[in-house]
Amino acid sequence: MFESAELGHRIAKETFREEEPKLRAALLDAQFDLRENGKFPVVILISGVDGSGKGETINVLYEWMDPRFLSTLAFSAPSDEERERPYMWRYWRALPPKGRIGIFAGSWYSDPIRDRILGQLDKGDLDQRMDQINRFEAMLVNEGALVLKFWFHLAKDGQRQRLKALEKNPRTAWRVTKTSWARLKTYDKLQEAAGHVLRMTNTPWAPWIVVEGTDDRYRSLTVGKIVLDALQKRLADQRDQNFPVAPPLAPKIDFLDVLTALDLTQKLDKNVYETQLAKWQGRLSELVRHPEFCKRSLILAFEGSDAAGKGGSIRRITAAMDARQYQIIPVAAPTEEERAQPYLWRFWRQIPRVGRVSIFDRTWYGRVLVERVEGFCSEADWLRAYTEINDFEHELHKDGAIVIKFWLQISDKEQLKRFKEREKIEFKRFKITEEDWRNREKAEAYHSAVCDMVDRTSTSTAPWTLVEANDKSFARVKILRTICERLESALNDVKSKVKGK
Amino acid sequence: MFESAELGHRIAKETFREEEPKLRAALLDAQFDLRENGKFPVVILISGVDGSGKGETINVLYEWMDPRFLSTLAFSAPSDEERERPYMWRYWRALPPKGRIGIFAGSWYSDPIRDRILGQLDKGDLDQRMDQINRFEAMLVNEGALVLKFWFHLAKDGQRQRLKALEKNPRTAWRVTKTSWARLKTYDKLQEAAGHVLRMTNTPWAPWIVVEGTDDRYRSLTVGKIVLDALQKRLADQRDQNFPVAPPLAPKIDFLDVLTALDLTQKLDKNVYETQLAKWQGRLSELVRHPEFCKRSLILAFEGSDAAGKGGSIRRITAAMDARQYQIIPVAAPTEEERAQPYLWRFWRQIPRVGRVSIFDRTWYGRVLVERVEGFCSEADWLRAYTEINDFEHELHKDGAIVIKFWLQISDKEQLKRFKEREKIEFKRFKITEEDWRNREKAEAYHSAVCDMVDRTSTSTAPWTLVEANDKSFARVKILRTICERLESALNDVKSKVKGK
Repeated sequence: MFESAELGHRIAKETFREEEPKLRAALLDAQFDLRENGKFPVVILISGVDGSGKGETINVLYEWMDPRFLSTLAFSAPSDEERERPYMWRYWRALPPKGRIGIFAGSWYSDPIRDRILGQLDKGDLDQRMDQINRFEAMLVNEGALVLKFWFHLAKDGQRQRLKALEKNPRTAWRVTKTSWARLKTYDKLQEAAGHVLRMTNTPWAPWIVVEGTDDRYRSLTVGKIVLDALQKRLADQRDQNFPVAPPLAPKIDFLDVLTALDLTQKLDKNVYETQLAKWQGRLSELVRHPEFCKRSLILAFEGSDAAGKGGSIRRITAAMDARQYQIIPVAAPTEEERAQPYLWRFWRQIPRVGRVSIFDRTWYGRVLVERVEGFCSEADWLRAYTEINDFEHELHKDGAIVIKFWLQISDKEQLKRFKEREKIEFKRFKITEEDWRNREKAEAYHSAVCDMVDRTSTSTAPWTLVEANDKSFARVKILRTICERLESALNDVKSKVKGK
Repeated sequence: MFESAELGHRIAKETFREEEPKLRAALLDAQFDLRENGKFPVVILISGVDGSGKGETINVLYEWMDPRFLSTLAFSAPSDEERERPYMWRYWRALPPKGRIGIFAGSWYSDPIRDRILGQLDKGDLDQRMDQINRFEAMLVNEGALVLKFWFHLAKDGQRQRLKALEKNPRTAWRVTKTSWARLKTYDKLQEAAGHVLRMTNTPWAPWIVVEGTDDRYRSLTVGKIVLDALQKRLADQRDQNFPVAPPLAPKIDFLDVLTALDLTQKLDKNVYETQLAKWQGRLSELVRHPEFCKRSLILAFEGSDAAGKGGSIRRITAAMDARQYQIIPVAAPTEEERAQPYLWRFWRQIPRVGRVSIFDRTWYGRVLVERVEGFCSEADWLRAYTEINDFEHELHKDGAIVIKFWLQISDKEQLKRFKEREKIEFKRFKITEEDWRNREKAEAYHSAVCDMVDRTSTSTAPWTLVEANDKSFARVKILRTICERLESALNDVKSKVKGK
C-alpha cells in the first residue's frame, strides 16, 4: 500500500519555481469554473501520519486557491449536540454545498483508526464501519460530489526526522506535542490499521491517493496537480454521474400485493375508540417520560395516500406529549440550501437529540414515491435511494434512535369521498388543489411505487407498518398502539442498545 | 401589573363549548393565510409562574391550529455550542422563518428573571439586560415579526391550589416536582422581579399580555382570541411595518470627511514590507495560540471599495493561522432560508465558537452600503440598521469576542488602474463585470454612505480602522499590525472580559 511513498521523492527548487505559477493559475481558473458552472461539491480528505505535512498542505491549498471558497473542517472532540446524534451527523452537517470545496482535516476515518489502534474496536466492527463508509462515499459520489482522499505517508525514520526538524524551528515547534512523539511509538500499529482501512475503502468511486510526505515541494506539487486534474476532468465531463446501484425491480404477475392484501373494512366503534385512544395515549405519555428514553430518541415517519389522515393521526400522538419534547416536520419542496446538498441532507439536519421526538409528515421516501412517479429524479437516482435510505435508517437505529414508519392506505372510493367532503368544508387548510385531483389519475403508478418501497425498505431495524385507514378511528388506534409497543420493547431491551457514549 | 389577573376570571363550560369551534375554525384560517400570504414570522412567548398552565396552553394551541406549522422551542441548560457563543445566539437560531409560528416556552426573559431572584444579577445589570431585550424585540418587529408576549399569573393561594390539584391527578402528577414547591416559597421574589421586568419591557411594539391562569377555559379562550385577533389585524394591515429609528443624517457642508482626510500616498518599500510582514505574521500566529485566546473569539470584518485589496489582505492574515482555526465567509446575496429571517440572522449563524476566527469578506454593513445606495431596502430599514448593528457588535463584544473592522480605501485613479489591469489578466477570477464599472458611477453615493457608516458605527468596543490602500504593502502591514495590537490589548485585559460561563 505504502511502497511507492517510501522511495524518497524530491522536487528540486528550480523545478518547483517553474511549475508553481502555472499550477496556481490553472487551479484558480478551475476553482472559478467550479463556482460558476460546475454544480458539484468537492470533498478533500487530508489524512496520514503525524508530521507528514497535513497542515502545511492545507495551507498551500489556501495559498494557491481563492480561500474565500474553501472551508476547512476540523473535528476534535464532538460537542454535546453532536454526541447526542448518530456518529455521521457531524460530518453531514459539515458537507460543502455545490460549487464549493470542503477540506476535511480529520474525517470519518479518524475515529475508527484511532479506536482500532487503542484496541477499542475489534476487526469485525472495524470492517462493518468501513462497509458503511464505502456506502456513504458511494452516496456522495452518486449525488455528484468529487471525493479526493489523501493519505500522507512517512517511513518510520522519516517521521522521527520530520518531528525533530519541526521542533527545531521556533515557528513550527508548537506543532510538535507530546502526543506527536507518543504516536511515533505506535507507528507500526498505525501502519497496520491504516493499511487495512485503506485497502477496505479503496473503492473505484473514491480511491485513496497515498502521497510521500517527506519533501514539502514534492508533496505540495503532487496534491496540487491531483486536485487540478480531478477538477478539470470532472468539469469537462458532461455525462450524468449516476449509475444504478440496485437490481431491476421484480415484475408484477398477479394482483396480490402488500396493499391489496390489506383488509380496509376494519373499523372501531366510537366507544371502543374513546377507551382505546385514552389507553394508548396514556401509555405513550408514560413511555416518553421513561428514564431510559432520555438516552434514546424517537423518529416517526408518516407516508400515505392524499387525505389518508396523516395529520389527524399525528395530532392524536402529539396530544399525549409535551410540546417541548417533539417537533413536527412537514416535508415540502427543498430549500435552496437543501438543494445544494445530497438528497438526505435535509433529513439529517432534523434528526432529534436524545430524549426528543421528530415526527415527519411525509419523509425521505419522497424520492421513491413522488419523485419516482413524477419523474423529478432519474431512474438511477431513485433506484439507489432504497439502499441509501436503508443505510440512513440503520445508522439511526445503531445510534439508539427508534424509527417507526407508517403507510396509511385508503381505498380509491374512500379517497374520492374525502376529497368531495373537503371541497365543501369552509376551513381554508382543507382546500383541495388541482394537483390533488391530478395525483388521483396516477394512482396505479403510486401503487407500484408503494409496493416496491415496502418490499425494499421494510427492514428488521425499521419495519413499515401498513395502516388500514378507511376508518379513522381504527387507523389512529393502530398507530398509537404500534408506537407504544415498539417503544416498550426498545426501552426494555436496554442491554443491546445503550449508547456507547 | 397583575391586578386584573387576580379577579377570579372563569368561563362556564357551555360558553366555552359554544365559542371553541368558531375560534378553532378562525384560527386555522388565519394560520393558513399566514402561511400562504402573510410573509411574516410570529413569535409567541409563554411565560409566568409555575402551575399557571403554560404547558397546557401550548397544547391547546397545538390542538386548535395546524401543528405542522407550529414549533415549540424549549430552553433548558444551553449546549456547549451555545455556551461558547453570545447569550442571544441560541434564540437567534430558534427564530421561526416567515409564515411560521414559533412558541417560546422559556425565552430571553427566563435567565435574567431567575438570576435576579437568586441574587446573581444586580438591579443595574438587570435593567441593562432589559434595555438590550427591548432593542432586540424592536428589531424583530421592524423586521416584520408579530411578537406576542404572554405572562400567566396566579395569586399565591391560587398557585398552591393548582399544584395540589395537578399532584392529585395521576396523569398530571409528574408535572409537579420538588422545584415547583420550592418555587412557591420564592413566590414573592418572583412577583417582584417579574413585575419589574414586565414594566421595563412593556413596549408599544411588544407589550406584555398578563393572563390569569386559574381557570383552564378562561385562559385558553383568552390566549386563543388574542392570537387570532393579532394575526387577523396584522394580516389585514398592508402598511409598511417600518419606521425610522435613527435621526436624520447630518448634511454635508464642506469637502472634509473621514475619507478625504486619509493620506493615500503612504507606502512601504519592498524590503521594509517583507520584514514587517514576517514580523506581524509571526506575532499573529503566536497570539491566536495564546492560552487566553481559547476563551475568546476573533471576528474580522472587511469592507472596502471594489479592487481595494480585501482578498489579498485576508490571504496575508490566514497565512499566519492554522486552516482549522478560521473560516472565511464571503458575503453574497442571501439564500432563501436567510431571506425568511431578520437581516442579521445570516451573520449570527456564522459567529465563531471560542478559540476560533471568522473572517467576513464583506459584512452586515451591506445594509448601509450597497443596499442603501442601490435602494435594495427602504430608507427606514437602513436608518435603523446603524442601531441594530451597534447592538449586534456590542453583544459580541460583551461575550468576549474581539471585533475588528476594516474599511479599505483607494483613490478613484488607483481603482481605474486596477480595473484595467484586471481586464488584462488571464485568471478568470479577476474577471471584471459590467457591474463593477456601474458601481464606479455611483462613487459619490458610496462615499457618503461610507462616511455615515463610520460616523455612526465606530464605537469604542468595535471601532473602524480606515486603511489607506493605494499601496498594497502599506495596507497589509497596517491591517496585520492593527489586528495584533487589538488582540494583544484584549488578551492582556483579562480581568474585565473573562467569560462568566
